Amino acid sequence: MVTSPLSTRACIDAIEPVNTAVAAQARERVDALTKPLGSLGRIEALAVQLCAIAGTVQIRTNLKAAVLIGAGDHGIAAEGVSAYPAEVTPQMVGAFIGGFAAINAFSRAVGADLYVADFGVRVPSPAHPSLIDARIGAGTANFAHGPAMTYDEVDAALDAGIAAFENIYARENYDVIALGEMGIANTTSAAAMIAALTQSRAEDVVGRGTGVDDHGLTRKITVVDGALQRLTSHDWRTVAHEVGGFEIVGLAGAILAAARRRIPIVLDGFIVSAAALLAYHIAPATRDYCIAAHLSQERGHRVALHALELKPLLDLELRLGEGTGAALALPLIEAASRMVREMKTFAEAGVATAE
Amino acid sequence: MVTSPLSTRACIDAIEPVNTAVAAQARERVDALTKPLGSLGRIEALAVQLCAIAGTVQIRTNLKAAVLIGAGDHGIAAEGVSAYPAEVTPQMVGAFIGGFAAINAFSRAVGADLYVADFGVRVPSPAHPSLIDARIGAGTANFAHGPAMTYDEVDAALDAGIAAFENIYARENYDVIALGEMGIANTTSAAAMIAALTQSRAEDVVGRGTGVDDHGLTRKITVVDGALQRLTSHDWRTVAHEVGGFEIVGLAGAILAAARRRIPIVLDGFIVSAAALLAYHIAPATRDYCIAAHLSQERGHRVALHALELKPLLDLELRLGEGTGAALALPLIEAASRMVREMKTFAEAGVATAE
Repeated sequence: MVTSPLSTRACIDAIEPVNTAVAAQARERVDALTKPLGSLGRIEALAVQLCAIAGTVQIRTNLKAAVLIGAGDHGIAAEGVSAYPAEVTPQMVGAFIGGFAAINAFSRAVGADLYVADFGVRVPSPAHPSLIDARIGAGTANFAHGPAMTYDEVDAALDAGIAAFENIYARENYDVIALGEMGIANTTSAAAMIAALTQSRAEDVVGRGTGVDDHGLTRKITVVDGALQRLTSHDWRTVAHEVGGFEIVGLAGAILAAARRRIPIVLDGFIVSAAALLAYHIAPATRDYCIAAHLSQERGHRVALHALELKPLLDLELRLGEGTGAALALPLIEAASRMVREMKTFAEAGVATAE
Repeated sequence: MVTSPLSTRACIDAIEPVNTAVAAQARERVDALTKPLGSLGRIEALAVQLCAIAGTVQIRTNLKAAVLIGAGDHGIAAEGVSAYPAEVTPQMVGAFIGGFAAINAFSRAVGADLYVADFGVRVPSPAHPSLIDARIGAGTANFAHGPAMTYDEVDAALDAGIAAFENIYARENYDVIALGEMGIANTTSAAAMIAALTQSRAEDVVGRGTGVDDHGLTRKITVVDGALQRLTSHDWRTVAHEVGGFEIVGLAGAILAAARRRIPIVLDGFIVSAAALLAYHIAPATRDYCIAAHLSQERGHRVALHALELKPLLDLELRLGEGTGAALALPLIEAASRMVREMKTFAEAGVATAE
């Protein structure tokens, strides 16, 4: 079990806002580079954000990137809300460790190291260098019948997420972290969390996940709606307690830790956006460290991104999770960093400007 | 000056259609991989296309990629259709060779080698290993007053494009090529070509390019409209003769050569789409080798992509050219290739399938 000398409270207190003065300086430099004004669109805005996060326009290039998958099981799976049986969670953890899942292929494609943090898969996996033991329990309780986890477990999952990030960061000082997830039925937990935190209706946030049919979709909406009715508060700790997932709360912890280290955080899709929203409610400054990699096909993703005021970089019609969308956005971050560091300005290059 | 033993005619005759039987086989494998059906969206379709292009599902990974920029000047620049003076074309060629333009930064970010083919910049650049001399002349004639180039120049530019590709391919057997361009006023030539080849109206294809003001936009539309009125035929050779650009016709030649070698061709934005459309009119089979990297902010890009029935992968609000959008799509091609080669199927992995 990973542990961190850093308490959640100390971590939160140490998170600084991104540097807006540097952002203005970065914008000025980006505008002076040898290209028509604004012609690199989203890459320019990304570059400015990276400078603001780093607190300098002298940002790094040739970035060392890690993908961290948070894995966990969900008692709510018993309600028939997923197209897949719960045994798939540990099987997919095995696939990640074995190196033959989609995220392994994508991580290799973009040159990122891959880690899996087990925040509470029903069956633990054998020890492996890339597997981080961050287990809170053997899956959450079924939130159709009561709280998903105790308040102590909420706190423990956040702690474990911070410790998981610190564990990875101690191995190598990564320049950027991409977050993904695995957990059968976790779209149901994520939908409930997003609905609660944004005070949206269940039907506006619940989607088909890995591909449930119409009956499954109706069950998901009913289950989420029922849990929402039960909520006495929209406070983040209550929401996590009632409908959270160990890996979702754990990933929120990882976001807190990465923001404290001033590391850009690349969010995958729907489930990771629930973690980012939770982190935002815990520490609003984390939001500006987050980069939305892509727009998931899962309908509630838009609701979460809207609440976070984040605009996704990619729209590749993905709905897999695992961090696949986040991995694909990493080269854009490298490109934005190199744009700032390696391009010359019109003046430096001796190129004529617009007439 | 590059020359190729391969004639344009022989090149065209040697282009084979992509392999649709392999495409079906690839689709079957992609559907069996350990992920919900269709959950990798556009990456799946891309993988199927890559297999069809290669003629095998055993496609390569760790792809060697080249970015080829076609550069050329345009007599039409004299009509005040660009926000930048024509001297910027050779200056930017200097920047590419010097390594400090946007495409240099992006090519390094994605691990691609960068080449510049000078198809007719007004001032030649000093020799350099990454500069390919494919010069047809010192810029085209001003097509406001007559044909942009002679028919012989059309043929020579196509030849030069084939030779430029073969020159690069002889240095290293690249697995994928991304095409970009540089040429002050080339959005005007591209707009006229696209309008002529798709029989669209000037105002539906002409955009602001690097950022002309309202007066400049009106001039562009007037100029393109005038040239379109003059066209006696929409035959590709007439279109290239009347309103083409040396680098645009040259890039069409490179497309022919790459399709002959069964290499995936990543198209940048608006201007490269004019080259792809020309190549499609010359040899329709080339279309299936093409991958539209991104949707440019230049409005006519949609018209060209619609005619080519290509759907762009990215929408990053880019409008720079140089191949910047194409470079950013290269990691997606690596990811799609690795998905096919490195993921296991549910059966191979022993993972339970959907219920």
